[in-house]
Amino acid sequence: MQAVVIHAAKDLRIESCICDPVDTGKVKVRIEAGGICGSDLHYFQQGGFGAVRLREPMILGHEVAGVISEIGEGVDGLKTGDRVAVSPSRPCGSCTYCETGLFNHCLNMRFYGSAMPMPHIQGAFRQDLVADASQCHLIAPQVPAEIAAFAEPLSVVLHALKRAGPVAGRKVLITGCGPIGALAVLAAKAQGAAEVVATDVIDHVLGIALTVGADKAINVAATPGWTGAWKADKGSFDVMIEASGTESALRAGLDVLRPRAVLVQLGLGGDVTLPINALVAREIDMRGAFRFHEEFADAVALINAGTLDLSPLLSARFPMQDAAAAFALAGDRNRAMKVQLDFTAAPEGRDPT
Amino acid sequence: MQAVVIHAAKDLRIESCICDPVDTGKVKVRIEAGGICGSDLHYFQQGGFGAVRLREPMILGHEVAGVISEIGEGVDGLKTGDRVAVSPSRPCGSCTYCETGLFNHCLNMRFYGSAMPMPHIQGAFRQDLVADASQCHLIAPQVPAEIAAFAEPLSVVLHALKRAGPVAGRKVLITGCGPIGALAVLAAKAQGAAEVVATDVIDHVLGIALTVGADKAINVAATPGWTGAWKADKGSFDVMIEASGTESALRAGLDVLRPRAVLVQLGLGGDVTLPINALVAREIDMRGAFRFHEEFADAVALINAGTLDLSPLLSARFPMQDAAAAFALAGDRNRAMKVQLDFTAAPEGRDPT
Amino acid sequence: MQAVVIHAAKDLRIESCICDPVDTGKVKVRIEAGGICGSDLHYFQQGGFGAVRLREPMILGHEVAGVISEIGEGVDGLKTGDRVAVSPSRPCGSCTYCETGLFNHCLNMRFYGSAMPMPHIQGAFRQDLVADASQCHLIAPQVPAEIAAFAEPLSVVLHALKRAGPVAGRKVLITGCGPIGALAVLAAKAQGAAEVVATDVIDHVLGIALTVGADKAINVAATPGWTGAWKADKGSFDVMIEASGTESALRAGLDVLRPRAVLVQLGLGGDVTLPINALVAREIDMRGAFRFHEEFADAVALINAGTLDLSPLLSARFPMQDAAAAFALAGDRNRAMKVQLDFTAAPEGRDPT
Amino acid sequence: MQAVVIHAAKDLRIESCICDPVDTGKVKVRIEAGGICGSDLHYFQQGGFGAVRLREPMILGHEVAGVISEIGEGVDGLKTGDRVAVSPSRPCGSCTYCETGLFNHCLNMRFYGSAMPMPHIQGAFRQDLVADASQCHLIAPQVPAEIAAFAEPLSVVLHALKRAGPVAGRKVLITGCGPIGALAVLAAKAQGAAEVVATDVIDHVLGIALTVGADKAINVAATPGWTGAWKADKGSFDVMIEASGTESALRAGLDVLRPRAVLVQLGLGGDVTLPINALVAREIDMRGAFRFHEEFADAVALINAGTLDLSPLLSARFPMQDAAAAFALAGDRNRAMKVQLDFTAAPEGRDPT
Repeated sequence: MQAVVIHAAKDLRIESCICDPVDTGKVKVRIEAGGICGSDLHYFQQGGFGAVRLREPMILGHEVAGVISEIGEGVDGLKTGDRVAVSPSRPCGSCTYCETGLFNHCLNMRFYGSAMPMPHIQGAFRQDLVADASQCHLIAPQVPAEIAAFAEPLSVVLHALKRAGPVAGRKVLITGCGPIGALAVLAAKAQGAAEVVATDVIDHVLGIALTVGADKAINVAATPGWTGAWKADKGSFDVMIEASGTESALRAGLDVLRPRAVLVQLGLGGDVTLPINALVAREIDMRGAFRFHEEFADAVALINAGTLDLSPLLSARFPMQDAAAAFALAGDRNRAMKVQLDFTAAPEGRDPT
Repeated sequence: MQAVVIHAAKDLRIESCICDPVDTGKVKVRIEAGGICGSDLHYFQQGGFGAVRLREPMILGHEVAGVISEIGEGVDGLKTGDRVAVSPSRPCGSCTYCETGLFNHCLNMRFYGSAMPMPHIQGAFRQDLVADASQCHLIAPQVPAEIAAFAEPLSVVLHALKRAGPVAGRKVLITGCGPIGALAVLAAKAQGAAEVVATDVIDHVLGIALTVGADKAINVAATPGWTGAWKADKGSFDVMIEASGTESALRAGLDVLRPRAVLVQLGLGGDVTLPINALVAREIDMRGAFRFHEEFADAVALINAGTLDLSPLLSARFPMQDAAAAFALAGDRNRAMKVQLDFTAAPEGRDPT
Repeated sequence: MQAVVIHAAKDLRIESCICDPVDTGKVKVRIEAGGICGSDLHYFQQGGFGAVRLREPMILGHEVAGVISEIGEGVDGLKTGDRVAVSPSRPCGSCTYCETGLFNHCLNMRFYGSAMPMPHIQGAFRQDLVADASQCHLIAPQVPAEIAAFAEPLSVVLHALKRAGPVAGRKVLITGCGPIGALAVLAAKAQGAAEVVATDVIDHVLGIALTVGADKAINVAATPGWTGAWKADKGSFDVMIEASGTESALRAGLDVLRPRAVLVQLGLGGDVTLPINALVAREIDMRGAFRFHEEFADAVALINAGTLDLSPLLSARFPMQDAAAAFALAGDRNRAMKVQLDFTAAPEGRDPT
Repeated sequence: MQAVVIHAAKDLRIESCICDPVDTGKVKVRIEAGGICGSDLHYFQQGGFGAVRLREPMILGHEVAGVISEIGEGVDGLKTGDRVAVSPSRPCGSCTYCETGLFNHCLNMRFYGSAMPMPHIQGAFRQDLVADASQCHLIAPQVPAEIAAFAEPLSVVLHALKRAGPVAGRKVLITGCGPIGALAVLAAKAQGAAEVVATDVIDHVLGIALTVGADKAINVAATPGWTGAWKADKGSFDVMIEASGTESALRAGLDVLRPRAVLVQLGLGGDVTLPINALVAREIDMRGAFRFHEEFADAVALINAGTLDLSPLLSARFPMQDAAAAFALAGDRNRAMKVQLDFTAAPEGRDPT
């Protein structure tokens, strides 16, 4: 079986590798679709991010769905032929954080495709993946694999919204309209947000944000002074989902958030300089949100229910052999939102619609 | 009657002024004790802070206690001779924030001694103060006025702890040991915090923090690398009360807070540069805390109960005529914690013990 | 001007009465539509409920909308001709509960049409109503008055859902499908509930629950053992909205709620006998919900947005002169959900569609 | 090694039994002290409670502390001779509740000394206990085993207080002053409760409640109309901890709780009849609390810190051979609070002081 292996920045190879044995409690999944995430892109473009750097070859990928091809001993509730989305979250279950239910902060987390620990945690962009049965969530018959592969980024967003508290009836600002920001638009509207305003600096992704339900989409690079309309009476937005990782988005948010608003920080970045008095005087509640765990089940249930239209977010699919072209497109925000790999030998990139 | 009036930086005058009429629902209070707060000091030292600048003469002060000398019509539950602490929080009751119970964010707040609005809101450093009956909270017979005058800063701290969520059984880091930080030490211990570690750069105030119950007090200027002991396993502290307004305290805190820790930001300051990834990856919850409202009643009840020993925080008292000397001492953190004015004609500064 | 006045059980009269003066801060509203609520029905059918009994004639009604016909001094933001929904919630603003933002628990609440205090609080079923400007919420041009008059019961439901915490992605059980239960179905779905199951003992109202979005509607009188399907693994529902006030609904709920589920009790009733061990062992969180305050603005905003289809809930409208017939129909759950009065001289009962 | 085995009501035997092997990840603990809990008493007195009945012989006990005598492979952080309190909470780690961190609701919980599942879960009243290393929490050198054995009931109380939300500065009513109620008094005061009022029908236990810090203790059997003083203005208490399992305590509580008060139900019982309107109109929040999990570590930390004086709660200790006498005393609330067994061959019952 073959896998998509990153050796160093720009050095992405399709290589043969050996599949793990299907031990007790495990299943083998024939992967069909895999989405390229921002962290995959960072490994591809720069060989890592911040202090996290590639130190050995690593299989990329953690947004995957496929079909069960083999069942280990002691597995209940799954059978060969079942179509599943696979959660990449693998906490240890016994560290101090797992003991208190904070699984996403596990000290020994083995999240697919991560160069944080050494040896690196190998990822899921491969034709056959052996996973714990508990990682595998059944997808409904009518859901294609490429839609099921959105379960992972949707989990990130559902976790962020859980951190935000209720958004029903509230005004929500979403800064950054990559796949995470766009999914946040979809999810916030589905949870009854009264108004969702999305911002970015690229018209292409803002257009998709509108397609999936944003009430307003603002190109902040082209609209100086855009915050003016929302500054009155100490601010207008009850909730902000920050998915850009930029200082300018944060500073703008602090101008337009109401007292006691919640600002969920999802975007990673470097140092940011903030006016601390704005946070104090309006008692803003700025909360980090990182990965997810139990929300994967919720994401799959939501996808199975069919109430979200995720298809506008899928820009293109490429056969795994063309991974380099897929990564190149994924890095171009003027043309792409989410780009996926097809592990079933599809011959070429194609529009999903 | 006389009042302590600031005209410009370093220009503090004792001036005669006319008392307001004791209208319906109002009482007149003969002020006995008034504590000098950091904002009073800012007006005295620099003529304001940030964008807030003195534009007309203003009576300073908002931490006061005294005796009721006259009762207006329609006042129930108070009588002449009652000893009271006076809350400086005066929300309008009808703006969008008051309508939803967020009184400390009132759009028309008339907090004593504030140069934010124009005309400025005149303060409470005066011999006679006419206040709404609802601002006046009865103090117990055994509580001296100088202790009752701590009700205001204690309210700030109780509000911050409410923002923090429960501290019982938790490890608490308090950065900045001025009167607010030191009161936070006292209050956190009284609420059952398992361990309270206090930091500052001045040994004098750290010594007082230890006296009032801190388990450890660290002079961070003298102890480079002090965070090392608390960094393991993604951090040690569950709660941080930031009362210094400095970037270095915040950055240190982000090194030693556990995943999902709550960081309550009380200290005001300017721009601070923060490593956003630390907040995201550990899902820190950074919450501004600003003033208070209903907590004033709680603070007075706590003081009346007598379970907190506030006396170590009171560095000196000066007769109002010596206000300039009092303000000079209040600004010297090597010698003073809280400095108060005595409005009852005490002849000179004296040690409160 | 005329009003609908209850003198005793079954003694409902249309009487002339004098309008209050339009004082400072007040507006006069020409009422167009008024919905009959369960408490109105209790006064009509039994002369009260529990310990609350009619002791003097009282104008009924608290679910009203109309047009402003006169503006008092000092009113901003409203003008003659504005169409408004009128909130019946009138807290005093100065009692111990108002001081802490718990307005719906005001010690001196003057909620329209209530016989709790003596003298009774006169209601809003009248041709002209003088109200505080702050009670009046603008309705959008496309919203008819009969839909705007749902703002009040919708506020009750939004408050109950706020008490419930987030329902997005959760399984919700709603017991009792009168207007409140049916509105809860609508609102829970709009806030992203994954599954809403509604129960009642009358097929007519269950049919409407399905029309407005319930995933399942169960006639529990006709379906003994209906809880069986949801009992496995300690229960299935995350949230229950109890809107029947019956012991049988509560006991059934305790059989099918998951550990840590939230049960919001809206329905009033008498004594109920509950198996306390079920609540303890599954750590159910049973929360009363009573009236509302700030949620009225949210309800009007939601109605103005037009995302909820409330029309299936409106069974019939009658001119105020036919109030007795309207009340008779309102009391027949086999034929009616919400019945309204028309104060604009419509000649006869008509289907609202 | 010997164990305390219940065969049927009143049939308690000291029997030899074989110790489990010390497998990987396990340790053997020589038990020193074991407290008799209410559930142990129910098995002894009635052979069970509610639907839970003894169906086979079962070792009782789940409140134990001792010394590690043997260490299995793969155990870090513990060594022979370490003194430990042993948590009886043993969730499976993989069911739907464990997956979401609700360990105390584990579908496969193996809590020591429980006849709920069949085969029963054998308890910890034995000379040697093989436990998972993660169940064992180090106790400080100065803490005697009989105090360490309070870690379990203290965990129950800390969990209940976590369910209650912050008690600092609040008025707390505790109904039922058995060991759980008395520990709740201690813990609530340690967390800064402003006032703690305890009720019971037995003077002996009320006296102990006063000793450990209750501000008032009321014998409700001897004080008809005791609620009168706390009924004004819709009620006085912010929090109630119900530890009696009786309807009369609940009904009294609903009379004296303020709007939005939290009532934590700890006491088990049968059916109770409640006035539902009181819960609704005051929006009481009634929350079940059941067992604990992560709070065991907090309880041990609190005991190690030495800030709670638990000794007044320990009525007597008996050698395990005299278990029947110990159980008889434990059942007499006029003479006993907590009664413990000594597994180290102490010759006779003795006063712990």
